[in-house]
Amino acid sequence: MILSALLTSVGINVGLCFLFFTLYSILRNRPSNANLYVPRLVAEGELEPEDEFSVRNLFSSVKWVKRAWQPSEDELLSNSGLDAVVFMRIFTFGFRVFRFAVIVGIFILLPFNYMGNQLNIDFTDLPNKSLETFSISNVDDGSNRLWIHFSAVYVFTAVVCYLLYSEYDYISSKRIAFFYSSKPRPNQFTVLVRSIPTTSGRSVSESVESFFREYYPSTYLSHSVVRRTSKLKGLINEADKVYKRLRHVKSKKYTQQRFKRSGFMGLFGQKVDLLDHYEKKLEDMEGNVRTERTSVAGKEVPAAFVSFKSRLSAAVASHLQQGVKPTEWLTETAPDPQDVYWPFFSSSFLKRWMCNLAVIFACISITFLFVVPVLIVQGLTHLDQLEIWLPFLRGILHLKIVSQVVTGYLPSLILEMFLSLVPPVMIVLSSIQGYIALSQIEKSACIKVLWFTVWNIFFANVLSGSALYKVDIILEPKRLPELLAVAVPGQLLNVYEPKFETGGKFWPVVHDATIFSLILMHVIAIGIFGVKKVPLASSLTIPLPILTLIFNSYCRRRFLPSFKGYPAECLINKDRLDQSDPTISSFYDELATAYRDPAMKPIRYSSESGESSHSPLLHSA
Amino acid sequence: MILSALLTSVGINVGLCFLFFTLYSILRNRPSNANLYVPRLVAEGELEPEDEFSVRNLFSSVKWVKRAWQPSEDELLSNSGLDAVVFMRIFTFGFRVFRFAVIVGIFILLPFNYMGNQLNIDFTDLPNKSLETFSISNVDDGSNRLWIHFSAVYVFTAVVCYLLYSEYDYISSKRIAFFYSSKPRPNQFTVLVRSIPTTSGRSVSESVESFFREYYPSTYLSHSVVRRTSKLKGLINEADKVYKRLRHVKSKKYTQQRFKRSGFMGLFGQKVDLLDHYEKKLEDMEGNVRTERTSVAGKEVPAAFVSFKSRLSAAVASHLQQGVKPTEWLTETAPDPQDVYWPFFSSSFLKRWMCNLAVIFACISITFLFVVPVLIVQGLTHLDQLEIWLPFLRGILHLKIVSQVVTGYLPSLILEMFLSLVPPVMIVLSSIQGYIALSQIEKSACIKVLWFTVWNIFFANVLSGSALYKVDIILEPKRLPELLAVAVPGQLLNVYEPKFETGGKFWPVVHDATIFSLILMHVIAIGIFGVKKVPLASSLTIPLPILTLIFNSYCRRRFLPSFKGYPAECLINKDRLDQSDPTISSFYDELATAYRDPAMKPIRYSSESGESSHSPLLHSA
Repeated sequence: MILSALLTSVGINVGLCFLFFTLYSILRNRPSNANLYVPRLVAEGELEPEDEFSVRNLFSSVKWVKRAWQPSEDELLSNSGLDAVVFMRIFTFGFRVFRFAVIVGIFILLPFNYMGNQLNIDFTDLPNKSLETFSISNVDDGSNRLWIHFSAVYVFTAVVCYLLYSEYDYISSKRIAFFYSSKPRPNQFTVLVRSIPTTSGRSVSESVESFFREYYPSTYLSHSVVRRTSKLKGLINEADKVYKRLRHVKSKKYTQQRFKRSGFMGLFGQKVDLLDHYEKKLEDMEGNVRTERTSVAGKEVPAAFVSFKSRLSAAVASHLQQGVKPTEWLTETAPDPQDVYWPFFSSSFLKRWMCNLAVIFACISITFLFVVPVLIVQGLTHLDQLEIWLPFLRGILHLKIVSQVVTGYLPSLILEMFLSLVPPVMIVLSSIQGYIALSQIEKSACIKVLWFTVWNIFFANVLSGSALYKVDIILEPKRLPELLAVAVPGQLLNVYEPKFETGGKFWPVVHDATIFSLILMHVIAIGIFGVKKVPLASSLTIPLPILTLIFNSYCRRRFLPSFKGYPAECLINKDRLDQSDPTISSFYDELATAYRDPAMKPIRYSSESGESSHSPLLHSA
Repeated sequence: MILSALLTSVGINVGLCFLFFTLYSILRNRPSNANLYVPRLVAEGELEPEDEFSVRNLFSSVKWVKRAWQPSEDELLSNSGLDAVVFMRIFTFGFRVFRFAVIVGIFILLPFNYMGNQLNIDFTDLPNKSLETFSISNVDDGSNRLWIHFSAVYVFTAVVCYLLYSEYDYISSKRIAFFYSSKPRPNQFTVLVRSIPTTSGRSVSESVESFFREYYPSTYLSHSVVRRTSKLKGLINEADKVYKRLRHVKSKKYTQQRFKRSGFMGLFGQKVDLLDHYEKKLEDMEGNVRTERTSVAGKEVPAAFVSFKSRLSAAVASHLQQGVKPTEWLTETAPDPQDVYWPFFSSSFLKRWMCNLAVIFACISITFLFVVPVLIVQGLTHLDQLEIWLPFLRGILHLKIVSQVVTGYLPSLILEMFLSLVPPVMIVLSSIQGYIALSQIEKSACIKVLWFTVWNIFFANVLSGSALYKVDIILEPKRLPELLAVAVPGQLLNVYEPKFETGGKFWPVVHDATIFSLILMHVIAIGIFGVKKVPLASSLTIPLPILTLIFNSYCRRRFLPSFKGYPAECLINKDRLDQSDPTISSFYDELATAYRDPAMKPIRYSSESGESSHSPLLHSA
C-alpha cells in the first residue's frame, strides 16, 4: 500500500463520517424518528413522540455533540445502569491506549523509521512511497535505533498494564458501590437449581419445596419450577399472528366504515365474514392455549428457580454443594428474570451436548472459510495480479484515483463488510449452544468473535507473508474505539435501553483480550528483533511476556473474584439495610412470580380485542 | 534379562519374604518389642509392655497371619479411622487390578507371545531364553494375534475403570457415613483466615473479633491468632534438652545412692554439683521461656483460626469471599489441630514464594540426577559391557550363579534402594514448601514421588532403547501392592496410630494416577501396534484414551466434590443432631483452645522435676 492510497482511504472515511453526522443531526429532529433515535426516553414515557422536537432547526441540533459529552458517569449510572458505565469506560480505555500509541508512534518511532535506509526507496516522490518506508522494515538491520523500538515496547506495555490495573480497580469498586446502591433485584435473592431428584409419586415442585423448607426453614421464600413450554410457545406465537391479522382487518373495517359514509358500499359483507373468521379462529386458539397451559403444569423439568428472603442465603445456596450426590441439586446464581433464555431449559443433556459439538464445528468452519474474502482483499492490494486475472479491467485500474481507491479503501471496506457479518452469526451459534441467559450468550459470542479475529488476522498474515507490515495493523485495532467513543455517549444515554444488568461482568473479557494482545505484540517484537539482527534486544524482550502474565495472574487474584459474586460482608450489610426497608415485603411478593416462564404469564388479546374476552385466560396459570 | 535370571530373582525374594516372616513372628512375641510392634495398643493403654506375650511360643504366634485377615472394615474404621480403611482399599484395589492383569497376561497373552517367531530364538534351551520371548516383541509383525493384545487393552481398561468407579463410589459414600458417625471435631467448626487487614492501633485479634462478631453474630465462637513462635520454640527445645540431661543425672544419682549404701562413696559430691548446675540452668531457661512467651503475645501474624458454633457457618465462611477486597480475609478449611504444621505460618509471602521456587528446582534436579543410578543398573544388565569396564571381574562374572544374581536380582535391588531414598527426600522438600498441614505435605510429596517415578521409568526407557520390554514393567508396578497387602492388615490394626484424619482425601490422587497409567498404556499400545504393522489396531485404539478421559471427567464431576467438603444437607443435619447432644457445650470449651500453638501450651518439667517447680509457668499462656 502506498501513502497516497492510505490518504485516499482516510479522506473517504472522514467524508463518510461527516455525511453520517449531518444525516443523523437532521433525522433525529424528525418527530417520527423519535422511536428510533431516543427509544429509551419514549419507552420510559419521558418523551411523547410528537414533542417539542419539531420546532428546532438543523444548526441548533448540532448541539447534541456538546450535550453528548456533558453527562457525568453518575448520570449514566442512574439512567442506564452499571453495564453502560463499564461499556463507556471500555471505550475511554481504548481511546487512552490509542492516544498513547499514536503519540509514541507518530512523534518518536515514525521519524526514526523514516530515517532508515533498509528499503532503499527514492526520497523525491513522497505520495507514491510505500507505507513500509514509515514502518520498522525501513530501519537498518542491527541499527542501534532498534533499541528505541525496544524501549517503546517496554514503555507501551507498562502504560497499558497501568491503565488496565486502574480500570479494573475502578470498575470493581464501582461494582460494589452499585450493589450497595441498587434496589433489591430478583436475581440477588434467587438461585437456579438443576438436576432435582424426585422420588416416585412426588412432583419436582414438591421435592423442591420440602428440600428447601427442611434445610433453609427461616430464609426460603418460594420457587418456580421450569416447565416444558415449547408447544405452548408455538401456540401463543400462532395466536399472536392471528391477533395481528385481526387487528389489521379491523383497522381496514374502520377505514371502510369511513369510506362507507362517503359512499363506497361494495365488499363490506365479505369483510365482516373475514372478521368473524379471525375472531372465531382466535377464540379456538385461545382455547388451545388454555388447554395446553393446564397440561403444561404436568410437564415439569427437573429445574427450578428458588428464591430466598436474604441475599446471603441465596449466595450460600449457590456456593455450597447442596445434596449428598454432587450430581444432584446443582445450584448456580440465577440470571436476571429478563436475562433468562428459556428455549434451552427443557432440552435434555444429550441434546445440549450435541448442539455444543455442532456449534464448535460450525465456528471452526466459519473461521477457516473466512480465508476466502481475505484472499479477495489480498488480491485487491496487489493490483498487478488483479490485472493478470481480469485483463479487461486494465484500462480502469490504470486511472490514478481508481487504483488508489481500489488498493487503499476497497480492501478494508470489503473486509469490514464481511467482518460485520460475523457477530450476528456468532450470536446465533451461541444461542443454540444451551446457555440459559442472554448475557451468557452475548459473552460467549463476544469471545467467539475475538478468537475469530485473532486467528484470521494471523492466518491472513501468514498467507500474505508480510509479517512486519501487519504489526502496525495489530497495534491499530485500537483506532476503532476512538471513532466510536466520539459517537457513542449521546447514543448510550438516549438510545441504550438495558434489557438486563450484569454489573459490568464483561470487563474481565476486555482485560484478558488486552493481555493477549500484549503477549502477541511481545512475541512479534521478539521475532522482529531477531530478524533485524539485534539478538540482545530479542532476548531482553523475553522477560516482558512473563512479567505481563504475572501481572495478569495478580489482577485475576486481586479483582476477578469480585466479578463472580459479592463478598459476605456486602451481602450481610445489604440484607440488614433491607430489614429496615418498608418496601421489602412488596418486593417479596413480586419475587415469588418474577421467574415465571413468560409463556405462562397472562396474554392480553382478550381485553384489547373486546369481543373474544375470556376472563379465565387472563387469570390462568 | 534371561528367564533363569528372573527365576533367581523370584527365588531370592521369596526366601527373603520367608526370612522376614519368621523373624517377625519370633520378635513380635518378645515383651520388650511391644512398643515397636503394637505401639497403638501400648499408646492406648490396652496392653502393658510386660503382658501375656511372654508365654507364647514361636509356632502358636504364626497365627497372627490368620488374625490379620479377620478384622472387618468396620473394626478397622472404629480402631484406626477412615484413612486406614481407604488405605486398605487402595491395596485391595491394586491387588484386584493385578490379579486380573496376571490372569490375562499369563494365561492368554503369554502363550500367544511365546508362539510367535519374530525374535527367532532357539527353542531348546528354555532357562537361557531371553524374557523377550514371552513379550509382545516375539509376536510376528502384522500377525492377527496382535488383535488379542488389542482386545486385552480394551478389556483391561474397561475392568480397571469399573473397579475405579465402584471404589470411588464406595469411598465417597463411606466418607459421608463417617462424617455422620464421627464425634464433633474441631476442624469441622473452624476456618483458617489469612491476610487479615488491621487498622492502626488495632491488633489482629481485635480485628478478627470485631469482623466475625459483626457478620456472624449468632454462630461465631472464638479465635486463636497465629503468633511468631520460632524463637520460643527454640528456647523450649533447649530447655527440653537440659531437662533430659537433668533426668539422666538424677537417675545416675539414684543408682549411685544405691551404690553408696553398698559401700561406694567416691564421686558423690561432684554429682551433686552437676545436678545443681542443671537445675539452675533449667530454672534460667524456664525464666527465658516465660519472658519470651509474654513478648510473643505481641508478635501477631495476620492469620487466625476462627471457630464457629455450627459446621454450616464454618463451611459458609470458607466458601464465600468474606471481605470486599478479594486479597483480604482469605478463608480456607482448617486442618485438624494435630495436622497443623506451624513453622511456615510466620514466614512472609515472599519467603514462601522463594522456598517454593527452590523446591521446584530441587525436585527437577533430583529427578534428572536419578539417571546416574539408573545408568549403573543398566550397566549391570549388560554384563558384557561390565566386563569391558572392569576386566578384573571377568572370572567372577563367568560363574553362572553370580551372573544370574548380578543380572537378575542386583539391578532391581540397587534401583529399589535408590528409590527408597526418594520419598523421605520429597517429604523434606514438601515440608519447606510452605504448606500449613502435615497431610498437605504428605499429599504433595506423594505427587512428587509419582511424577518422579513416571519420568524416570520413561527417561530410563529412552536411554535403554528397549521400549517394548519396559511395557511389562509399566503394567507391573501393581505387583508391589500385592506383597504389601499380605503384610499390612495386622500391621495397620496394631501399629498404625493415626496422627490426623483426612477422611480418605488421598483416594483422588490414586484415581488420577491410575487414569494417567491407563492413558500411558494406551499411548504405548498405539505405538506398538504401529511398530508391529497393524495400523488398523493402532487407529482403533485411539478412541480408548478419549473414552477414558471422558470417564475420568465424569468421575471428577460425580465424586470429587464430595472429597473437597461436605454438602449443606449433611452439615445441617449433623448440626441439628448436635443441638440435642449434651456434650456439645464441653466440646465448645475444648474448641476454644484447640488451635493454640503447641509452643504456647504449658510445659510440664516443673511438676515432674519437683525442685524447680514454678506454678506461673504451668498456667501461663
